[in-house]
Amino acid sequence: MAKNVSTSGLRRRSPGCIELIPVPGLPEIREGNDLAGLIFAAARKARIVFEDADIVVVAQKVVSKAEGRIARLSTVEPSGGAMQLAAKGGRDPRLVEVILRESGRIVREHPVLIVETHHGFVCANAGVDHSNVPGDDVVTLLPKDPDRSARVLAEALRRLSQKRVAVVISDTFGRPWRLGLTNVAVGAAGIPVLLDLRGSRDRNSKPLQATILAIADDLAAAAGLVMGKREGLPAVIIRGYKYRPAQEPATKIIRPAGEDLFR
Amino acid sequence: MAKNVSTSGLRRRSPGCIELIPVPGLPEIREGNDLAGLIFAAARKARIVFEDADIVVVAQKVVSKAEGRIARLSTVEPSGGAMQLAAKGGRDPRLVEVILRESGRIVREHPVLIVETHHGFVCANAGVDHSNVPGDDVVTLLPKDPDRSARVLAEALRRLSQKRVAVVISDTFGRPWRLGLTNVAVGAAGIPVLLDLRGSRDRNSKPLQATILAIADDLAAAAGLVMGKREGLPAVIIRGYKYRPAQEPATKIIRPAGEDLFR
Repeated sequence: MAKNVSTSGLRRRSPGCIELIPVPGLPEIREGNDLAGLIFAAARKARIVFEDADIVVVAQKVVSKAEGRIARLSTVEPSGGAMQLAAKGGRDPRLVEVILRESGRIVREHPVLIVETHHGFVCANAGVDHSNVPGDDVVTLLPKDPDRSARVLAEALRRLSQKRVAVVISDTFGRPWRLGLTNVAVGAAGIPVLLDLRGSRDRNSKPLQATILAIADDLAAAAGLVMGKREGLPAVIIRGYKYRPAQEPATKIIRPAGEDLFR
Repeated sequence: MAKNVSTSGLRRRSPGCIELIPVPGLPEIREGNDLAGLIFAAARKARIVFEDADIVVVAQKVVSKAEGRIARLSTVEPSGGAMQLAAKGGRDPRLVEVILRESGRIVREHPVLIVETHHGFVCANAGVDHSNVPGDDVVTLLPKDPDRSARVLAEALRRLSQKRVAVVISDTFGRPWRLGLTNVAVGAAGIPVLLDLRGSRDRNSKPLQATILAIADDLAAAAGLVMGKREGLPAVIIRGYKYRPAQEPATKIIRPAGEDLFR
């Protein structure tokens, strides 16, 4: 990418351009860490100065670690239900027990365990995950209240930076009909998570119908391009996206079960 | 956003940063237009110089218009099946007829008509759309072969720019379980659409399991942040995303029906 940068390291920014800026150098996060403080310090070290309207997208994994939302499989006593379900799918009964504790309802058992979490998210394994966790015994759980986690992070980052920044907490979810995982929002603070364009008009002055954009998910997906999976870049700043500040929870994105024929 | 730019209009670009650059000033696209030529000319007018590895995300709507993939409802003769289905849902039977012609199978009739298109995409109304089309009579259809459209665009843009650019053709799709539309890839040329990380290792040297990232959809979603819906910005350049060039069709993202319990 050296060709993209002029010799002075300075380049022209096009109007309307959005930048996705990785925050490098974050350490392995442990329970009790001040995540906002670490993100702010890492950004400063990389000479990244926060600006008003910056959106900081943070991977769920590091939020969960900082909040101690982990489980040690060696300490888990699987219930009879978990044993049965594990046997059917050739799964670790302790892992299934952890997933069931995080779940309000099972949506599908095969080929992956798709559940509705206590928050209402429909996803594989209730977001319980082995990857990017030290050791074989530890799994991470989704934060208990990811919208609250996002608000706490946003408040701390605002205090530290003295800028009006917003926060999205992201996780990678699968989806029916299309293969592969995409990054979606599980927590949000400071942005509109859904942008309702109904009643507004398109460029031909026709009213836009049925157009609600899942902005928070598009922001999470964009940050996902920078985060990758292997690279240890769990915080990305999105700069230049124009929005009206709003206090909307990411749970607002959950489709009400009554409207939904696919669970 | 003026605050983000230094008085000289030059700014430092952080390492690993990705830019989403809108191509402004595209005219209303009509059948037979040279879309690649128009995008290249609009970019040049905006002083945007293409670089190797740039990914140009183009909204399906303008591709369809250039390819003449439109239908005039006033000329459509609805079949008996379309009349019946339209009556059940209070829909325009001519619109339903157009949707059925684009569909291989109906997945759900209510509350929206969800079908599998002839390409295999599962989406509402087979991607047939009224918005951003002049007049009340005209609807756009998805391109007949969006991957081919992407290849043709990429080849033309490479010829014009003398740079190795890739193309994603995007459309906004809804999804079960989550509200709102997100931008997804319906056509691709020059990029890996799915990034298979199975067998690679996370930052703790543990093998990553079940991790296939839907890169093309994340790219489309990122571009969606710039496109909006009202703004008439149907082409966005993504710069700085690192990838191995590949020739993979976006149809590769379609989950095989046999693996899928939700249709």
